[in-house]
Amino acid sequence: MMSVRSTSWRNELKSHIRGKSLVFLLADSNLPDSYSKDIMKVCKIKNKTHLHKIKGGEQIKTHQHLIKIYNELDAVGADRKSVVICLGGGTISDLGGYAASTYKRGIDLIILPTTVTGMVDAAIGGKNGINLESNLGILKNQIGTFHQPKLIGIDFNWLNSLPKDEVKSGWGEMLKHALLKGGSHLEQFKNTEPNLASLTPLIIDSGNIKEGIVRRDVKENGERAILNLGHTIGHAIESLALDSSNGSEIKHGIAVAWGIVFTLEVSVRKMGFNNTLAKELIKWIIDIIGYPEKMWGSEEIWLKMCKDKKNTNGNVKDVLLRNPGDADWCFTWEREEFTILWEQFRERYELTSC
Amino acid sequence: MMSVRSTSWRNELKSHIRGKSLVFLLADSNLPDSYSKDIMKVCKIKNKTHLHKIKGGEQIKTHQHLIKIYNELDAVGADRKSVVICLGGGTISDLGGYAASTYKRGIDLIILPTTVTGMVDAAIGGKNGINLESNLGILKNQIGTFHQPKLIGIDFNWLNSLPKDEVKSGWGEMLKHALLKGGSHLEQFKNTEPNLASLTPLIIDSGNIKEGIVRRDVKENGERAILNLGHTIGHAIESLALDSSNGSEIKHGIAVAWGIVFTLEVSVRKMGFNNTLAKELIKWIIDIIGYPEKMWGSEEIWLKMCKDKKNTNGNVKDVLLRNPGDADWCFTWEREEFTILWEQFRERYELTSC
Repeated sequence: MMSVRSTSWRNELKSHIRGKSLVFLLADSNLPDSYSKDIMKVCKIKNKTHLHKIKGGEQIKTHQHLIKIYNELDAVGADRKSVVICLGGGTISDLGGYAASTYKRGIDLIILPTTVTGMVDAAIGGKNGINLESNLGILKNQIGTFHQPKLIGIDFNWLNSLPKDEVKSGWGEMLKHALLKGGSHLEQFKNTEPNLASLTPLIIDSGNIKEGIVRRDVKENGERAILNLGHTIGHAIESLALDSSNGSEIKHGIAVAWGIVFTLEVSVRKMGFNNTLAKELIKWIIDIIGYPEKMWGSEEIWLKMCKDKKNTNGNVKDVLLRNPGDADWCFTWEREEFTILWEQFRERYELTSC
Repeated sequence: MMSVRSTSWRNELKSHIRGKSLVFLLADSNLPDSYSKDIMKVCKIKNKTHLHKIKGGEQIKTHQHLIKIYNELDAVGADRKSVVICLGGGTISDLGGYAASTYKRGIDLIILPTTVTGMVDAAIGGKNGINLESNLGILKNQIGTFHQPKLIGIDFNWLNSLPKDEVKSGWGEMLKHALLKGGSHLEQFKNTEPNLASLTPLIIDSGNIKEGIVRRDVKENGERAILNLGHTIGHAIESLALDSSNGSEIKHGIAVAWGIVFTLEVSVRKMGFNNTLAKELIKWIIDIIGYPEKMWGSEEIWLKMCKDKKNTNGNVKDVLLRNPGDADWCFTWEREEFTILWEQFRERYELTSC
């Protein structure tokens, strides 16, 4: 997999869409209109174009929304030589990428990520997906494919319209990459304020960490699984938030950061991760993300963990850290031990328990 | 792509499922119970197994049925190390193959085709798919992926339970391969009675023709498109039959055979295909498939053709023959000419017009 990310991509975009029968721009309607207008202008010079706006968020990653996109692609005459461009955050590229990979058995995809999470994580590596509504509630990214984008175009100016909680969510994914990399990158990241202006210069580096891992293991037969650091718990928390009757949403990166706090605690016990360092890292993380109002119980979390895509043969797998920069993706949970450790964790951090 | 087809595959099957967390057998409920029991027996020795029966037919290739399979996979605890085995005809492997390729971003697939069409065509080449219900009615195989099976296990005994119209449908696909190959294979096929006993010895050869073409062009960037011979019209006829209020179904291979009759007529006009030979071939084909009771008008057929996956830049593409064994996959239809030729064809062959 060659790097397809670029910060000076407008000419590349033009060359990618040259001769395409149709450009189907799937854009997040939360974004300022000027963003999609700008892209439409670039595309319209030589191409038939269609703009399809959809309000981004985890709630769009359903078969219902997917089928709407298929029908729209069909209605505007998209064929195998058409291209889908996703302009938005990870939920837009997850849904749009999956649609592109399955419409007429796969058409070209370009991703223009407009969030920090999108730029450092979601757009990179070709994974896409939608959630499955099961008897157990919503299961994150259970349905999807690997479909590499032809181009990932990054424009830091897009981040200016990003809500603060989205910046913090992006920080959570950057935290994950920093812990997976360790060394001077982690030090630099720890010394970076979690605001947009300070984080922006680190975005390309953070994406490079993911890209390096993906390049060595595109289809996640092994090492790529370390990118799930904090995600076993993170996905469980996200799914439970989506299931809850008030439909409250916990941002992906925040859920991951909580997963990482738990992972650090467990890594001390199970992997000999340095206790002093773990405490220091946890304090730093919580200073940034704050304490959760409420945390789900071990029973609910466990049921979601049982559906994690990493699991095999009924074993609940997780990623732990021996040191920063040294992850183990083969840890297997025993339910009893998980219950004890999770309930301790919950008591320690849940605001209502404090 | 290595050949994965085998007629002595029971030991191979055992080795493929060794260590798998779960075997999910998707079997056509139209088949005698003994077929799935036999496979379950082979699998149960070392594996957790689950049997999911579904009544095969084009009507199952919907998102609704797909989601049911996802939920069943989820309910029985299928994970990334599980395998889906499809036991049935092309509609079973189209649906089950697509489910396998997208569940948790893709799990292993084994196909055990029980129809002639499945053995010579549908199981080979990794294409799967479901139909899209659009404003224009049902569009065949608009949604799908390429997902190569690990094994295609063929047992000719399974064909003994095949209804006669299914044998004839399989003959239609074998006809396509014979015309694409030409030479002595076509001669041999022309001299073969269209009954099961006579066709069976030609099944492996017919599948080899497809496999050779697919091997040279797995993702259909070029040559693989010739496998669509007769399918532009064939798919249109099938889709219209599915749309019709009485839900009548025209078997795939029969629809393709009709597409081939039309293609031969057009090939004489547009490609200099030998007229005498075309007439001889058409007479032979119609002696076998009979005249259609009713044939749709050019307007309806054209609208379906406009949605064909081969089309690009709004051009309706088709596959024609210069000679047996020499196909052209770049023909572009003009609507006016199509209308004239189709209405002539319809008048000539539709029973109610005769």
